Amino acid sequence: MVEMSNQFVFNTFAFLIWGALVMWMCAGFTMLESGAVRTKNASMICLKNIGIYSIAGVAFYVIGYNLMYVDVGNIIGSFKFFYSSSGAEEALLGGDSVPAAVIDEVLGNGHAKMSDWFFQMVFVATAASIVSGAIAERIKMEAFFLFTLILTAFIYPIVGAWTWGGGWLAQEGFSDFAGSTIVHGTGGWAALAGVLVVGPRLGKFKRDGTVRATPPSNVLVVTLGVFILWFGWFGFNGGSQLALGTPADAIAMTNVLVNTNLAAAAGVVAALAVSRQVLGRIDLFAGLNGAIAGLVAITAGPTMVDHQWALLIGAVGGVVCTVGIKLLEIFKIDDVVGAIPAHLMSGIWGTLAVTIAADGRFHIQLLGIVTVGAFVFVASYVVWQLIDMTIGLRVSEEVERMGQDAGELGIEAYPEFVLMPEPYDD
Amino acid sequence: MVEMSNQFVFNTFAFLIWGALVMWMCAGFTMLESGAVRTKNASMICLKNIGIYSIAGVAFYVIGYNLMYVDVGNIIGSFKFFYSSSGAEEALLGGDSVPAAVIDEVLGNGHAKMSDWFFQMVFVATAASIVSGAIAERIKMEAFFLFTLILTAFIYPIVGAWTWGGGWLAQEGFSDFAGSTIVHGTGGWAALAGVLVVGPRLGKFKRDGTVRATPPSNVLVVTLGVFILWFGWFGFNGGSQLALGTPADAIAMTNVLVNTNLAAAAGVVAALAVSRQVLGRIDLFAGLNGAIAGLVAITAGPTMVDHQWALLIGAVGGVVCTVGIKLLEIFKIDDVVGAIPAHLMSGIWGTLAVTIAADGRFHIQLLGIVTVGAFVFVASYVVWQLIDMTIGLRVSEEVERMGQDAGELGIEAYPEFVLMPEPYDD
Amino acid sequence: MVEMSNQFVFNTFAFLIWGALVMWMCAGFTMLESGAVRTKNASMICLKNIGIYSIAGVAFYVIGYNLMYVDVGNIIGSFKFFYSSSGAEEALLGGDSVPAAVIDEVLGNGHAKMSDWFFQMVFVATAASIVSGAIAERIKMEAFFLFTLILTAFIYPIVGAWTWGGGWLAQEGFSDFAGSTIVHGTGGWAALAGVLVVGPRLGKFKRDGTVRATPPSNVLVVTLGVFILWFGWFGFNGGSQLALGTPADAIAMTNVLVNTNLAAAAGVVAALAVSRQVLGRIDLFAGLNGAIAGLVAITAGPTMVDHQWALLIGAVGGVVCTVGIKLLEIFKIDDVVGAIPAHLMSGIWGTLAVTIAADGRFHIQLLGIVTVGAFVFVASYVVWQLIDMTIGLRVSEEVERMGQDAGELGIEAYPEFVLMPEPYDD
Repeated sequence: MVEMSNQFVFNTFAFLIWGALVMWMCAGFTMLESGAVRTKNASMICLKNIGIYSIAGVAFYVIGYNLMYVDVGNIIGSFKFFYSSSGAEEALLGGDSVPAAVIDEVLGNGHAKMSDWFFQMVFVATAASIVSGAIAERIKMEAFFLFTLILTAFIYPIVGAWTWGGGWLAQEGFSDFAGSTIVHGTGGWAALAGVLVVGPRLGKFKRDGTVRATPPSNVLVVTLGVFILWFGWFGFNGGSQLALGTPADAIAMTNVLVNTNLAAAAGVVAALAVSRQVLGRIDLFAGLNGAIAGLVAITAGPTMVDHQWALLIGAVGGVVCTVGIKLLEIFKIDDVVGAIPAHLMSGIWGTLAVTIAADGRFHIQLLGIVTVGAFVFVASYVVWQLIDMTIGLRVSEEVERMGQDAGELGIEAYPEFVLMPEPYDD
Repeated sequence: MVEMSNQFVFNTFAFLIWGALVMWMCAGFTMLESGAVRTKNASMICLKNIGIYSIAGVAFYVIGYNLMYVDVGNIIGSFKFFYSSSGAEEALLGGDSVPAAVIDEVLGNGHAKMSDWFFQMVFVATAASIVSGAIAERIKMEAFFLFTLILTAFIYPIVGAWTWGGGWLAQEGFSDFAGSTIVHGTGGWAALAGVLVVGPRLGKFKRDGTVRATPPSNVLVVTLGVFILWFGWFGFNGGSQLALGTPADAIAMTNVLVNTNLAAAAGVVAALAVSRQVLGRIDLFAGLNGAIAGLVAITAGPTMVDHQWALLIGAVGGVVCTVGIKLLEIFKIDDVVGAIPAHLMSGIWGTLAVTIAADGRFHIQLLGIVTVGAFVFVASYVVWQLIDMTIGLRVSEEVERMGQDAGELGIEAYPEFVLMPEPYDD
Repeated sequence: MVEMSNQFVFNTFAFLIWGALVMWMCAGFTMLESGAVRTKNASMICLKNIGIYSIAGVAFYVIGYNLMYVDVGNIIGSFKFFYSSSGAEEALLGGDSVPAAVIDEVLGNGHAKMSDWFFQMVFVATAASIVSGAIAERIKMEAFFLFTLILTAFIYPIVGAWTWGGGWLAQEGFSDFAGSTIVHGTGGWAALAGVLVVGPRLGKFKRDGTVRATPPSNVLVVTLGVFILWFGWFGFNGGSQLALGTPADAIAMTNVLVNTNLAAAAGVVAALAVSRQVLGRIDLFAGLNGAIAGLVAITAGPTMVDHQWALLIGAVGGVVCTVGIKLLEIFKIDDVVGAIPAHLMSGIWGTLAVTIAADGRFHIQLLGIVTVGAFVFVASYVVWQLIDMTIGLRVSEEVERMGQDAGELGIEAYPEFVLMPEPYDD
């Protein structure tokens, strides 16, 4: 048996170090997205992403965490002021104090109170990051930041409370280890709502029914982003074991990392393999999205000891995502980076796949997918509409043609480089 | 109680893993700076930064660490040869040996001796990195490397010895947890001295009194650099707890990471919010520097349990930095990346702010700021002047116009890309 | 004494966290290589590298690990099916199960079984990554992936079994701590064989006997890649201690990290210092490769407590690499990124240098270098030839001139940027 103080240190440190890796995923989203948009909008993506992480970090501190985890109500969570160790009521979360007298009480938590906050906070940012890529190149900065604030302070914490806060979905037995549905589904549904409200980019779907290719501005940076995300996912899934203090935890965390890596690798291989059929060529972008899709798919249930299931789950995720990219084109839904196929579609698959190798029940998994999806989609749709009706959602046609970097932000991504004249006019 | 051997492992491992993250900050500085200069000087920044870390690593091994931490004298530190476990005198630092007989003696240190060296060494590199960005685009490579050697072998270790080596400032009660003044102030003062000696870039301040904008060459890379620094800062501040072996340490480290992240987030939000007033627009570069400024500000005292103070300290840091960027323009001081506002000005604020939420005393904090600043500024100024008088500090006007990449280094950063003709001629 | 459960957690966690850092090295290779090739081939490098890591991850799971570590035969390793904890025979590796009853048996391993797999798997990917840079810009995608599969499923596991699997080289006393020869030598010899079979790039060696310079497409990205590799190497060497659970392990791991960093720093300084003599100028690329070479050199024996030896070993590594770059030019061997000097030549030096500061015996080290080299070179040469005779190794001259991005992959790395007309025609 590992001694209790030791467990406390292990558990806390695991939250901190894996949480730091998840924070690093924000850089991954930033690179993936800023490399995937057209050059004229790349600076704006940089601003949006550093903004997301900052807004999410503050909003989840002031509102979100309390709503999600503290004295959670069945349906929407609830908000309760914390008491500091001094006994005085405080409006905001406070860390543990460490006078000798409180140590025993604190030890009983199993980890430093705020180490859990730290880990959960970086998760919120992930959900919000998924949105920014899908609706890039046409949404106003202020509108996007306002949505981010509402998503991270309210929408995500409410659906999160249903399961991870111990709410009604948890009581039904819904199983979502690190958030294929709760994080990636939430981000994906919010993105889908946004994309539907704001509409496709100018000239993306041509009058003759064909789709205009918008190749990534900087392939190296997209690739770097995917590697960052893969690396950070070890923290995302590994840290979601929520403990390291016993050999059983260490074993579980190991299985999680092994499955995570196998699923991602299988996602790449499968996506590349089918891309020739589905998209007409060995497609780098499909392969890169295949990694993300494999990772998302395994996120709901990465604990199985029979690791060959991870290969299957990841590979199917890669296929789902590649087919999803094609489907979006058919339905004329303009998702700039493929966030909806990679996070939402593959996340649905992964949440159902829990029933293959672990002990989730299919109809409960479906219930979770549908209820989370319905709530997030509807809430997001309403919020996007309200933003559109008030401060406006979409940049002017002039700014969209010129690019948000020059038109809205006043700083281009590569000011000294000569770019091709845009071939996108209809 | 965590058992002593266990504590030893925890403490040592924390130094190693957090130290590795701080090393990664060197990549952050490299990206931030090479993206922020004009394209014609970007390769030189890459060379300077890999050179900084290498020179600092060797110099701190051979000279600096001994000067800073071993048998420290009150004013300048002192140098003492180490004894190896075999009893023979050695000229250089040696690691712990591990025969059974010495283990008890070694355990008493609480961590492997050289794990502390590893962690402190990466800090020196940070101080030196701050300099390179500020004086970029006009200083000779050899001159810069010579200054780096003197800074990392002598100047930084001497001021470091005053506090962290247990010298006179520590005895006065000066409080600087991870180095808002000792690291970031030192880098900032050395940079300011360098900038004053070498003067502004050609054409930066025009004859008509206006300031020429020099937009970053590659905004994505600047953004990546800031994310790397933010990520690495968890190691910088978290590791500065210097121990992980007890629940009290784990709690303190948690509070440090939470405050670090909140301050950075608040720094971004505040800098973006005031940038419209101060600089005339929502400014990405101000937001990115706001993250750095928030991080620097919290570095002096990130241990408070009432985390809302971290929001305040970081936000004010972001404002200080944004105003500082404007101030430098007014005083015609040419700091290419905004290192002086972000590291020096925000570091002064942070060092004073310790007195708000922790137990520093204002006049002692001021004493530390002033004495460290005076010593570093004067010493650096003299060294820069001596270098200027001997091997020369500034590249020729021809090289400066052509760029250091083509003119001095013989390799351009993006040799195959077509660049705009330079619009900077007066 | 650290208690056994505790040791189990420490050891397992060290494998996981250091292994995650080694995975991150794949991003480093990707950036280094995609920045070092000409722009027209940069996307293909991205695809190859995400493909390498994915293929290696699957192949080492299905075949390689069993061949290398399970019931290893003296010469080629052997393959044995695992038994799951349920007692049923399985075809594939399975993780530990954690019912209370098996915990004692599992604890006896010292770490979670698959945590070792995770750490070893990321090593295979490193060996394969070394190859892709050397033979870039002219090898077909399918041919490369096929070779990668054979290298990671068979060639590397077989030579790995000789030493790390407990085979005949281990019994002879061959000493290679983290793989200067086993990993970097294997990658280097496979690369050399490939380069010889496929031949130099069109126009690299001109008819008049001069060598055409092919400057890196993106110097920032190359530099970033080197920083990633340096950072990741702390995991590569530190994790190769294979344990963290006792103070003795923590001390050894500390010494490993200190030596690793000192060797890299010395490699940079030495390479820059001699580059003026050897290559005619202070050469950024030599300095960057010097870091890699210093890291490779120390990898065979980074445990010494007299750290000054690490400075020597790294510095000589940096010199060997710089001279090696020149040698390759003289022998008209076209290694695009300098992988052979940095990994193979410096790895040979490092494997011999074990005898300086540690307890390797020179003739046994030489035996290991020669036998590993002979096997890998011959096996790789045969495989490259077989691939050439079947699906073909080299792209058409048309594709090579046009670039693999446009000609083979259909996606350019920077589609919107204007590039210079190629000056490389003979």
